[in-house]
Amino acid sequence: MAETARTPVSRRRPQDDPADPGDRRSRYGNRPTMKDVAARAGVGLKTVSRVVNGEPGVTPDTERRVQEAIDALGFRRNDSARVLRKGRTASIGLVLEDLADPFYGPLSRAVEEVARAHGALLINGSSAEDPEREQELVLALCARRVDGLVVIPAGDDHRYLEPEIAAGVATVFVDRPPGHIDADVVLTDSFGGARDGVAHLIAHGHRRIGFIGDQPRIHTAIERLRGYRAAMADAGIEVDEAWVSLGPTHPERVARAAEAMLAGPDPVTAIFTGNNRVTVTVVRVLAGRPRPVALVGFDDIELADLLSPGVTVVAQDAAQLGRTAAERLFRQLDGASGPPERVELPTRLITRGSGELPPAR
Amino acid sequence: MAETARTPVSRRRPQDDPADPGDRRSRYGNRPTMKDVAARAGVGLKTVSRVVNGEPGVTPDTERRVQEAIDALGFRRNDSARVLRKGRTASIGLVLEDLADPFYGPLSRAVEEVARAHGALLINGSSAEDPEREQELVLALCARRVDGLVVIPAGDDHRYLEPEIAAGVATVFVDRPPGHIDADVVLTDSFGGARDGVAHLIAHGHRRIGFIGDQPRIHTAIERLRGYRAAMADAGIEVDEAWVSLGPTHPERVARAAEAMLAGPDPVTAIFTGNNRVTVTVVRVLAGRPRPVALVGFDDIELADLLSPGVTVVAQDAAQLGRTAAERLFRQLDGASGPPERVELPTRLITRGSGELPPAR
Repeated sequence: MAETARTPVSRRRPQDDPADPGDRRSRYGNRPTMKDVAARAGVGLKTVSRVVNGEPGVTPDTERRVQEAIDALGFRRNDSARVLRKGRTASIGLVLEDLADPFYGPLSRAVEEVARAHGALLINGSSAEDPEREQELVLALCARRVDGLVVIPAGDDHRYLEPEIAAGVATVFVDRPPGHIDADVVLTDSFGGARDGVAHLIAHGHRRIGFIGDQPRIHTAIERLRGYRAAMADAGIEVDEAWVSLGPTHPERVARAAEAMLAGPDPVTAIFTGNNRVTVTVVRVLAGRPRPVALVGFDDIELADLLSPGVTVVAQDAAQLGRTAAERLFRQLDGASGPPERVELPTRLITRGSGELPPAR
Repeated sequence: MAETARTPVSRRRPQDDPADPGDRRSRYGNRPTMKDVAARAGVGLKTVSRVVNGEPGVTPDTERRVQEAIDALGFRRNDSARVLRKGRTASIGLVLEDLADPFYGPLSRAVEEVARAHGALLINGSSAEDPEREQELVLALCARRVDGLVVIPAGDDHRYLEPEIAAGVATVFVDRPPGHIDADVVLTDSFGGARDGVAHLIAHGHRRIGFIGDQPRIHTAIERLRGYRAAMADAGIEVDEAWVSLGPTHPERVARAAEAMLAGPDPVTAIFTGNNRVTVTVVRVLAGRPRPVALVGFDDIELADLLSPGVTVVAQDAAQLGRTAAERLFRQLDGASGPPERVELPTRLITRGSGELPPAR
């Protein structure tokens, strides 16, 4: 059915001149169709369909003739057509925040590995932290009939997904929860991890501790700030709001924030950084200063152990986040029942030197 | 046409119980179809199709009725069906080696940005350096009718792509050339970059220089080794084959190779590393040794400037590789003519200390 809607048989086919690089456009879409195969093999369309789909009812001799025609024409089954017939595309979508952020590398790979184990392709894209772009991308993926979605949300209202979820698109959020809808979500314990990291600095004698995090509309930024405030409150330390800075994680903004906390008569003696992008910039700022400043960062970073001092971090397991989310997605697709769940993975404090520096006098 | 092949109208539709999380499987595929919309609006299928596709010939009153039915049912146009009718999917495929390698982050993002500027989705996956998996992934992408492919090849024979290219799938290889077929390719000047990096070590007094690279079937590994040999030959230095080690880039293998070159009565005094994965491990090995060993690495690595000493690198521009490849792909899709071309981007030597260390005595 699908094939009949495609290219007419009379047009030029690839084998006419496969080496001609001159005009790609005119060749576009000139794929051999099942009709072409049927004509060449001298059989009916239904017979070709049976051979292509491995269905019974074809004699070995006919099957061989059809296979020869398939090979000669370079025919390949159109999976888009099968999608429509079967209702399953064997693909899942992954919507990230930024393909170039190293945090998402292991997460993406883990999702891909689980998808591959289930015979599904991974289609992905990034929202660049723009809620409109997230929605556009998610709906584009739904329009191409992905079986399911793993979404790291940029926006805070996901009601636009309700019709898709109701129509059966499996959906799991990861790293940040969805807004205004109920769905499976896999998170890192951002609150607990930040609280532990800040408590570690307090245990090493710090009371004037800065917090530099991501934009305040991002769930993890707020949770980690909440962890910072909880640790400070637990120790009876009143937070000076000049010690807190949330905003975009580009180096200029983060460097300005760090410099501001470290200036003046009463600078902070330690900084807690809210994610890997912030940590990398603060490490750079601190490297240029004469007096040591303690640092604990959320997220591990490559080579953190080889810096002087090594960077103490609250590590989260990005691969485990991706794996857990993808496995939940395929459990949904396999028909698992029950209400949506929230899974929270623990963090791990890794001490390497920067978080154990005493307050500079 | 496509819709008729999908769910019968009589089955349960999402609005029956959108909050029920109990049985996702039975709901799967129960999307409202154009037929549902037509029935609810009391119009023919063709009328719904006209409204959905923005075609003329519908009165404003009818259009309003159809739109109301679309909204009430949560109908969304099935782009898979449109793909079959139009022959273009507005998606491109990107086949990487490893989603988690930081080298591919900026490359992927650049490809995505170009795709987005052309209104296309990016579908990607990774070959894990396995030629069979590369072929499987490429053909799966072709079967879903991507408009074009950007491929970082794992294998060295791409004749399997000939029917796809002949059928009009635009194809650009990046980072490594294809094998046995003629196609656009965008590379970094691996030979020239490695030759410059090794010449830099020679200029700082080294003669016993090690080379640790990726597996010998990978084009960039061989080109960089060729650059090493050329620089050594230019300086009249005979290469002891004990100084050369190619193989997988996992830390154990690389660390063993480095330790072997640094052992014995006549150890190397400098190492040239063939890519970022190798560099990271060798930096770690050298950090644990009492005597300084000079190091120049191919590829820049994050925080390389903050290590002691800073790591001197031959940097390539991963984002520019991705951008150039994607732009060539869309030029092909826009009908650009001419034979396939090979584009080679230059490298840049960044001196930071490790490559300027004199030979240890």
